[in-house]
Amino acid sequence: MKGTTHISDPHFAERVRESFARQSMMHLIQATLPVVEHGRTEIHLPRWHGIEQQHGFVHGGVVGTIADSAAGYAAMTVVPASASVLTVEYKLNLVAPADGDKLIARGRVVRPGRTLIVTTAEVFAVKDGKESLCALMQQTIMVMHGKVEKQGQVASSRRN
Amino acid sequence: MKGTTHISDPHFAERVRESFARQSMMHLIQATLPVVEHGRTEIHLPRWHGIEQQHGFVHGGVVGTIADSAAGYAAMTVVPASASVLTVEYKLNLVAPADGDKLIARGRVVRPGRTLIVTTAEVFAVKDGKESLCALMQQTIMVMHGKVEKQGQVASSRRN
Amino acid sequence: MKGTTHISDPHFAERVRESFARQSMMHLIQATLPVVEHGRTEIHLPRWHGIEQQHGFVHGGVVGTIADSAAGYAAMTVVPASASVLTVEYKLNLVAPADGDKLIARGRVVRPGRTLIVTTAEVFAVKDGKESLCALMQQTIMVMHGKVEKQGQVASSRRN
Amino acid sequence: MKGTTHISDPHFAERVRESFARQSMMHLIQATLPVVEHGRTEIHLPRWHGIEQQHGFVHGGVVGTIADSAAGYAAMTVVPASASVLTVEYKLNLVAPADGDKLIARGRVVRPGRTLIVTTAEVFAVKDGKESLCALMQQTIMVMHGKVEKQGQVASSRRN
Repeated sequence: MKGTTHISDPHFAERVRESFARQSMMHLIQATLPVVEHGRTEIHLPRWHGIEQQHGFVHGGVVGTIADSAAGYAAMTVVPASASVLTVEYKLNLVAPADGDKLIARGRVVRPGRTLIVTTAEVFAVKDGKESLCALMQQTIMVMHGKVEKQGQVASSRRN
Repeated sequence: MKGTTHISDPHFAERVRESFARQSMMHLIQATLPVVEHGRTEIHLPRWHGIEQQHGFVHGGVVGTIADSAAGYAAMTVVPASASVLTVEYKLNLVAPADGDKLIARGRVVRPGRTLIVTTAEVFAVKDGKESLCALMQQTIMVMHGKVEKQGQVASSRRN
Repeated sequence: MKGTTHISDPHFAERVRESFARQSMMHLIQATLPVVEHGRTEIHLPRWHGIEQQHGFVHGGVVGTIADSAAGYAAMTVVPASASVLTVEYKLNLVAPADGDKLIARGRVVRPGRTLIVTTAEVFAVKDGKESLCALMQQTIMVMHGKVEKQGQVASSRRN
Repeated sequence: MKGTTHISDPHFAERVRESFARQSMMHLIQATLPVVEHGRTEIHLPRWHGIEQQHGFVHGGVVGTIADSAAGYAAMTVVPASASVLTVEYKLNLVAPADGDKLIARGRVVRPGRTLIVTTAEVFAVKDGKESLCALMQQTIMVMHGKVEKQGQVASSRRN
């Protein structure tokens, strides 16, 4: 994203972290959100048995889940505090087995817009400290203006 | 898929069900595979707290996971017993909140090929016995010839 | 699309045909729009030298162009007369060479919405009267309310 | 693409340029291929009436055509001389009207593989010397080993 983009909400990181904390699915797979910057986020995921397929790699659906969320939250960092975001669609290429000690999904905003935001995400497998690309995603996010995402309220209908 | 398509392996349903049973991720989210026919499958998913986002809808990543798997297993029904399959890529449109008592992902083969298989999946939310479309997916599957998927062996690197 | 969908504009076919007629690109490749029904359209394309690649097949970019337009115009049939449509994104699988006497792209609305419409298109090559699938597309269309598409005016910014 | 990638064919640029020259569709829309480097290419397209829609912007199908070709030819630069490439599928986001004096499509290889290559392309509109992003594409390319692309022969079935 262009570095000159206006920051719509100075408290974007807090807002994004609170939303992430409310996602029971993220807890279920043991994902964390250690990086939230303007226009980009990182989701980390340790390797553990419950999210694997039988051969010891992380399931492709889990790879897609963290890619979708990392990019969706990157979009959420650039919208006003009075808006929420939801995933319209995404396209994911799985380019190598998700093998490693942990996965890192890096989402970033490519094209911010008032109604639609285009993002991408890359997912890396980290093995012995070395990262290798395992998935690439391109995504369309919709901005729901005037629909604040609050605890216990239905705000954005899908991403949250 | 054309109804005239040759059945490469008469025991395809057994092979697919065994593979599904080995996916710990499917157990984690409580998904089942009640329908395995030549060229199509169905994955069912009850609504429960752990896979929801904070507003009570099923997480979009879970929707993608069952769509990807339903279509991937549909592809697996049409390949020889000596082959396995893996997801090259998929594109998912989330068209409505995944709200309901359960979700049904229906995958089917649109275009079988020796090396690549094109599939689609639709995910429906079932509420009070009524189905409504919540996601639509288009997917490319690669056939790995000579790589049987066996318990405890790395056969296909991603799907399994 | 559900058969019960309300017709927003009884003159949709006229509106769509006028828009198509203004696309110089459609003239350049010699495409026609013989079918415009509520929620679906067909674009036909004769085989001729200028749109081929060197081996005598129709260029993949042309296949994508008629798929995108057929589905986009299918979406246009379901919006009010006071709205226009534009393509947000599409995903195209090219499943077989576009070989034949002519191509037929069939677009249809899968999920109409107030702001976003999800469509699909199939492109068939017709050879000796027999159709074979050569491409499959899934697309997201945005509805621009209050932006009538008129001759000589910039209405919708991309599709038209 | 990693800078360390092995160059499979030192004459890749010649091979790519010859293929491009045989595409009658590229001539029809007046596209040129001024940049062919290992792992990346550029296709340029002047603005002219025949490829526009009625409002003076370049047609979205044309944008997709040059994105698809730029990325496909980027893939062709990294395969052996004895192989050809074809587009399996691509996903294109149209993020802004294709307005400007000319368009530049930049394709690059993200993940080379023996059988499948993942690429991306960005399309920029150039206006008064200033580039602005108008489209973003993610693509899967298949490598056809032992199928040299030669003049007058059917080598790769789609891209060429």
